[in-house]
Amino acid sequence: MVPFPRLNKLNPSDDLGLGNRPGPGRSVNKDGTFNVRRVGLPTFRGYELYHRLITMSGFRFLGLLFLGFLVTNLLFAAVYLGLGMEHFVRTGGNAPLDRMLDAFFFSAQTLTTVGYGHISPNSHLVSAVAALESLLGLLSFALATGLLYGRFSRPHAQIRFSQQGVVAPYRGGTAFMFRFVNRRSNQLIEVEATVSLSYLDGESATRRFVTLPLERSKINLFPTSWTVVHPIDEASPLFGMQDEDLLRAQAEFIVLIKAFDDTFAQTIYQRTSYTADEVRWGVRFRSMSDLGPDGILVMDVDQVDAVEAAEPEGSPAPGPRA
Amino acid sequence: MVPFPRLNKLNPSDDLGLGNRPGPGRSVNKDGTFNVRRVGLPTFRGYELYHRLITMSGFRFLGLLFLGFLVTNLLFAAVYLGLGMEHFVRTGGNAPLDRMLDAFFFSAQTLTTVGYGHISPNSHLVSAVAALESLLGLLSFALATGLLYGRFSRPHAQIRFSQQGVVAPYRGGTAFMFRFVNRRSNQLIEVEATVSLSYLDGESATRRFVTLPLERSKINLFPTSWTVVHPIDEASPLFGMQDEDLLRAQAEFIVLIKAFDDTFAQTIYQRTSYTADEVRWGVRFRSMSDLGPDGILVMDVDQVDAVEAAEPEGSPAPGPRA
Amino acid sequence: MVPFPRLNKLNPSDDLGLGNRPGPGRSVNKDGTFNVRRVGLPTFRGYELYHRLITMSGFRFLGLLFLGFLVTNLLFAAVYLGLGMEHFVRTGGNAPLDRMLDAFFFSAQTLTTVGYGHISPNSHLVSAVAALESLLGLLSFALATGLLYGRFSRPHAQIRFSQQGVVAPYRGGTAFMFRFVNRRSNQLIEVEATVSLSYLDGESATRRFVTLPLERSKINLFPTSWTVVHPIDEASPLFGMQDEDLLRAQAEFIVLIKAFDDTFAQTIYQRTSYTADEVRWGVRFRSMSDLGPDGILVMDVDQVDAVEAAEPEGSPAPGPRA
Amino acid sequence: MVPFPRLNKLNPSDDLGLGNRPGPGRSVNKDGTFNVRRVGLPTFRGYELYHRLITMSGFRFLGLLFLGFLVTNLLFAAVYLGLGMEHFVRTGGNAPLDRMLDAFFFSAQTLTTVGYGHISPNSHLVSAVAALESLLGLLSFALATGLLYGRFSRPHAQIRFSQQGVVAPYRGGTAFMFRFVNRRSNQLIEVEATVSLSYLDGESATRRFVTLPLERSKINLFPTSWTVVHPIDEASPLFGMQDEDLLRAQAEFIVLIKAFDDTFAQTIYQRTSYTADEVRWGVRFRSMSDLGPDGILVMDVDQVDAVEAAEPEGSPAPGPRA
Repeated sequence: MVPFPRLNKLNPSDDLGLGNRPGPGRSVNKDGTFNVRRVGLPTFRGYELYHRLITMSGFRFLGLLFLGFLVTNLLFAAVYLGLGMEHFVRTGGNAPLDRMLDAFFFSAQTLTTVGYGHISPNSHLVSAVAALESLLGLLSFALATGLLYGRFSRPHAQIRFSQQGVVAPYRGGTAFMFRFVNRRSNQLIEVEATVSLSYLDGESATRRFVTLPLERSKINLFPTSWTVVHPIDEASPLFGMQDEDLLRAQAEFIVLIKAFDDTFAQTIYQRTSYTADEVRWGVRFRSMSDLGPDGILVMDVDQVDAVEAAEPEGSPAPGPRA
Repeated sequence: MVPFPRLNKLNPSDDLGLGNRPGPGRSVNKDGTFNVRRVGLPTFRGYELYHRLITMSGFRFLGLLFLGFLVTNLLFAAVYLGLGMEHFVRTGGNAPLDRMLDAFFFSAQTLTTVGYGHISPNSHLVSAVAALESLLGLLSFALATGLLYGRFSRPHAQIRFSQQGVVAPYRGGTAFMFRFVNRRSNQLIEVEATVSLSYLDGESATRRFVTLPLERSKINLFPTSWTVVHPIDEASPLFGMQDEDLLRAQAEFIVLIKAFDDTFAQTIYQRTSYTADEVRWGVRFRSMSDLGPDGILVMDVDQVDAVEAAEPEGSPAPGPRA
Repeated sequence: MVPFPRLNKLNPSDDLGLGNRPGPGRSVNKDGTFNVRRVGLPTFRGYELYHRLITMSGFRFLGLLFLGFLVTNLLFAAVYLGLGMEHFVRTGGNAPLDRMLDAFFFSAQTLTTVGYGHISPNSHLVSAVAALESLLGLLSFALATGLLYGRFSRPHAQIRFSQQGVVAPYRGGTAFMFRFVNRRSNQLIEVEATVSLSYLDGESATRRFVTLPLERSKINLFPTSWTVVHPIDEASPLFGMQDEDLLRAQAEFIVLIKAFDDTFAQTIYQRTSYTADEVRWGVRFRSMSDLGPDGILVMDVDQVDAVEAAEPEGSPAPGPRA
Repeated sequence: MVPFPRLNKLNPSDDLGLGNRPGPGRSVNKDGTFNVRRVGLPTFRGYELYHRLITMSGFRFLGLLFLGFLVTNLLFAAVYLGLGMEHFVRTGGNAPLDRMLDAFFFSAQTLTTVGYGHISPNSHLVSAVAALESLLGLLSFALATGLLYGRFSRPHAQIRFSQQGVVAPYRGGTAFMFRFVNRRSNQLIEVEATVSLSYLDGESATRRFVTLPLERSKINLFPTSWTVVHPIDEASPLFGMQDEDLLRAQAEFIVLIKAFDDTFAQTIYQRTSYTADEVRWGVRFRSMSDLGPDGILVMDVDQVDAVEAAEPEGSPAPGPRA
């Protein structure tokens, strides 16, 4: 039996731009990165460096700043020592270590422009190097100011997706669903969801993509959670499919979320994907929110993964629950 | 009698993303925040901290800056005292208080990089701590620079909504109306309004949402005021409703305004809501603007709430007035 | 005779948001500001202050910075004088002027954190005031950094509109036209134009607005100039109108341009308007560009106003010329 | 024979905004700049200066900063020398060079606010000049901070287009194709392509523009490459054309790419063009990506130009390959 026989007539323009992945494995990782390695990129361009400094972890960034401060001072200390410590007015000792440390601390006091003056230049050459160093210091801290601001102000969507998708009862039939919450205290508005199904075509052994119609693809406000629903009706490529069909076709649900961050006036995007073995059948999401005693709706963000057994029959077609 | 009987056939995809609030009380507060408490959010992440520093009040922010300056100096002063004040060249006295204050002020002069030099390090260990402190000082002020800029440049919509909505005569019938002005001196353009009605469904006792059609949902320019009008004609879910019907159904008009801030090239959003008891029947908004003697239209922003008694009959269907 | 009789059936939702200006005079000034004065705005809010500092002229901004520096130093100098100059280590004289100037310059050296140290605090109280002053200095310059960046990075559209609109021959009939160029060396793309006609309705003596259909309302690229064309055909509210009809109806063509600034990734808007007496009949725009000897198209931005006599008949329906 | 006879009935609103280039030569250069020189632009406005400082090369920018530092110090040194070096407390010699260099280095120590204090003002006049200089220094570095941030944070699309377009077999017929990759390590999403054909009309000898329909004009994700395809079917203006027809009509394919930069929340644009002699017939693009041994798709960005001979017949209509 060929899975997804009815997809052959779907519009081929549904290609997502992911390329035609020839083999097995997911196209989009859980964290939204792509399963693609690009080689041949230029590495030593200014914008690449900036990109790395902006996106690396905070600890690493601070470590780099500290390291840069240390290395710059060591270099300038070496220059001052090379010129000779007799070119300084200073009160410290003349043992080699004293001279080295005085050179180092004079450099630090110059680079940070603190300039106490208890060590100060006594020759024009040292003064010239010190002038250069203080200029370098100011520009470096100008750069650090921009980097710190750039790190904080760049988009930081923190959408938390349910670890698993479900195929749950929906309006008398079933539907593929997943849900997500905003893990930041800011507000996201005009949230849009796009879900595509990627699968290995049985005949041509190539990967195909098709956009899945959603019960609702946009919500205006997003203070709680959103359960995205693709109804598995006759128009759905999943109609009549079983769990094992999706596994055999190496199906992958690729999710793209777009939203507007109210606080920073930024459009943000976040991606994830659900492979066939990350979809549970016969369960549905349990409600994450409850009315508190003070009349305020309380939503527990940690409950985004909570599911409960679904009763497919007898019950009157439950809709998705927040 | 069941209020809103004709709404049952409305599109359920009109859910705003507010979740299905089971009980009484408003979903959106007057200031546009949501009547929702999210628990389980991470609190000690950098972006949450940044978010709080950016959105807190100016007084609190300055207070925090000052407190941070004080605490940092106290900590470093303790370190200098621990190392011993004999490691400093200084002219101050040797009473404990003198030593403590000298340590504190040396720290302040180092952190701000003012570095007069009348107190200066006399040992390498103190010099090393001072070098670290001046680095910390520069990075802290780099951070403060970014925070100050971030605070000012983030979107600050200051739309002032009328405190109450009205149901007023409109083109022979009636209409639900509210109005708003821009309380900032900048210009907002391409202003869009979306109004949704939330109500408690009599039968299912669940809350439903429906988007209300507006006489006009977008204006290009916004130098004066805008009276948003939902005509209560046969297509309106409010057709034939009375004041008490809205109260019984716990109706809430949820308003979302989107605009573009010309000065800062930012898209901004602002929200509010009108509950049933915030809607007045039988009055209409009084004009806020008048032509000044110099030919310039003068609009008094403080008049946004001004209403006057409406004469439903006899008068030829007055339109909304600016 | 009633001008614009056929406009009565036009869609009233064409209101631009300008309000219903009861009297004579233009709604939009040549520079794009509105002929409206809003009163009752809050003035001493932080965002208003920021808005003013960002939008004022460069000379005024620098003047304010300098004045702020002067006043702050005078205030702190007064404090230091009040505490007594005996709390300083200094070598200057003791004449009142010497003491005052030493206090002033110590303040300046503290506020800028230059801190030479030839004048330095000799008491804990003065040290404390100086620590506060250096903190204030750093925060002030952090603020100045943000303001300077905010001033430069905010949108600066420099669209230069032709001073006059024309009613010129166009495709066998006539058309209302104006044109504009980009006066900055950056590139604007995806440029959109909206033109509305405002006129005084003869019967109701109220002002009405109608959006004019354009031959083309968007261009992708904008390296040269754009002549916006509203063809005066049977669908046009201007069909059959004469120069004096427009004057009598106090007609005003309100222009809104939207574009994307490639260099700064910003959407920018610019407005202007043409009143009836700023529209010339029977001329057309002369071409602004010519092919240079090196094969490069040369466009003279200063020629944006250049017109030439139009021959309405005999010539084969000339289109708008760049 | 007249090339492009069937284009005469195409919509003239397809003008791109490039103006009606009367002669030969391309409208858009390979790097996306326009073949247009605008004269009459104002040059000494602040925003033009900012624009230049933001867009110039990094080396030039750093050179300008250094030069500015040098010149400012020379100017202030001249002032200090003019006032007389006897107004300073200093320990240096009195030879003219010593005095000049001391003035210079005092200036540098004031401008950078390092202020060691071994040279310090001894008169009120010099103190006043030094206070001004330190204020100027702080403002200059505030400006430099903004400029450095502005340089890094402005959009830096690095789309690498294939040097040549191809006319290759496509679904039983042929198609015009080109492809491009993202040369930065960031992710571009919601990528849109617009391709216009510009050609010299045989009869009127004027240049005309027509937008070409694409097999797909938008992709959601862009981790690999995108081959943009204009099918040359009966609806295409290129239907039945030969290589020499395009050359004779001086055809130019003008490409506009729009994308959203995920990392910086910026919309970016990039342009290029293919003239008739930059289009190869009878070849097609070779795949740039292969599945690595670790299951990750590896794409070699340097292969964007790689083509292979195309077999127009017998093979079953190959589609575009990533």
